[in-house]
Amino acid sequence: MTDEAPSLNTLIDRLTTDDETSVAAIKQMISQFVAERDWRQFHAPKNISMALAVEAAELMEHFQWLTVEASREVESDADKMTAIGEELADILCYGLALANELNIDVAAAMSDKMRKNIRKYPKDEYQGRYGKDDPGRRD
Amino acid sequence: MTDEAPSLNTLIDRLTTDDETSVAAIKQMISQFVAERDWRQFHAPKNISMALAVEAAELMEHFQWLTVEASREVESDADKMTAIGEELADILCYGLALANELNIDVAAAMSDKMRKNIRKYPKDEYQGRYGKDDPGRRD
Amino acid sequence: MTDEAPSLNTLIDRLTTDDETSVAAIKQMISQFVAERDWRQFHAPKNISMALAVEAAELMEHFQWLTVEASREVESDADKMTAIGEELADILCYGLALANELNIDVAAAMSDKMRKNIRKYPKDEYQGRYGKDDPGRRD
Amino acid sequence: MTDEAPSLNTLIDRLTTDDETSVAAIKQMISQFVAERDWRQFHAPKNISMALAVEAAELMEHFQWLTVEASREVESDADKMTAIGEELADILCYGLALANELNIDVAAAMSDKMRKNIRKYPKDEYQGRYGKDDPGRRD
Repeated sequence: MTDEAPSLNTLIDRLTTDDETSVAAIKQMISQFVAERDWRQFHAPKNISMALAVEAAELMEHFQWLTVEASREVESDADKMTAIGEELADILCYGLALANELNIDVAAAMSDKMRKNIRKYPKDEYQGRYGKDDPGRRD
Repeated sequence: MTDEAPSLNTLIDRLTTDDETSVAAIKQMISQFVAERDWRQFHAPKNISMALAVEAAELMEHFQWLTVEASREVESDADKMTAIGEELADILCYGLALANELNIDVAAAMSDKMRKNIRKYPKDEYQGRYGKDDPGRRD
Repeated sequence: MTDEAPSLNTLIDRLTTDDETSVAAIKQMISQFVAERDWRQFHAPKNISMALAVEAAELMEHFQWLTVEASREVESDADKMTAIGEELADILCYGLALANELNIDVAAAMSDKMRKNIRKYPKDEYQGRYGKDDPGRRD
Repeated sequence: MTDEAPSLNTLIDRLTTDDETSVAAIKQMISQFVAERDWRQFHAPKNISMALAVEAAELMEHFQWLTVEASREVESDADKMTAIGEELADILCYGLALANELNIDVAAAMSDKMRKNIRKYPKDEYQGRYGKDDPGRRD
């Protein structure tokens, strides 16, 4: 690390708001955290994919016994929102850690996938329907 | 939607590279895709958390029978990398869709969580060790 | 394998109904299927745990966009029930494959865990409540 | 519950060993535990599938940073084996709880699926190979 390399704290401070934060800035923060602990040895894609699935399950655990409608109400529960924000942060962290390991440009991957989604789910055909078997409109 | 509202295609085109793309730009693209299909009705946190876990499992499936070391080699397999990039895009999409639904600022959530990680995993104590039980250095 | 060792088909035929089938009979069938393909090399606990999680996600996929109540109605859809039965079979298969690898007696493990569950969730305290935060009775 | 209905403790005591325990006996124990707490209201297939996936992730967590080979060594660690046995019990519990809710005969579903697996993975073609892309034999 040269004198000019920003410290981890500096990299964390750069994450202000979603409007002002680039994906690259988040990836750089994660990379630095991992490097400082000599943890790249653990960050093989197989391991990261497991860790990501574990975090996804921890997020799900908040909702497992709730009705779908009740799950929307968590937004008014500050403690739950903190916990959910942390689980989401963990998920995105591992997602971007995988992108770091495999040199994936996330913006490019997401725009490619979104174009594919548009072809797979034409907006007229899937209007209010989540899939081919869904009759749609339930009111 | 007023005349000035950018189309979904415009929003997709804004996702160029991780350096040039803000988290907010990705969230806006996802929001527009969901709105155009009247899919917010399905995007309750409970449902999104399930969809996210399903995508995490699809990512994991690429690595389930590989050794840890072999999983690092996927980077040299272009077809696998395309498939993995798509799974990662799906995961991040649902993660940001949840952030949209629950009004979570991801940059703020991730910097908060990273500060917590630093306290939980001091870099000297966890140097080359993934946890308290890990004796570390395996060479 | 001696002449007397039952063939895989014989072991499969022994699985008649839940009343007549022991856990050991299912474990033996799985063990034989794995051995015949020289697949124990892949059945390390790490790999099996991933495969199990992948199958659990495939089961979940059937329900991800349904309301809780609608998910109860799958029982009247024969095609869905076949698909769900297959996912459940896969999950239980990997669960018992793990038991085979690690020499876990499942009946013993489940009775131990159930005794622990009884202490953790006393029936009076948790009557109609899934957790400490659940106020219970919603009718 | 009539006088003759066995108590939950009696049902638990019937789970002795895998040789002596039928799938039906385990299902009955689970059914009684759930009924005594008035928890069937939570046991919609959607919810159970989430709970099952959460438990599968908890099992996976024990192995996420280990190499494949190291994951085989957990068998010699009594504390880890207890924890793993509990996670496996939880997974099987939710699997059989789903079978209870949807009236699935697990023995029948597993024998059907195993016959399908034999057709999908002929033993000669998949000898020592986990999939079509696997060249096999790595010694």
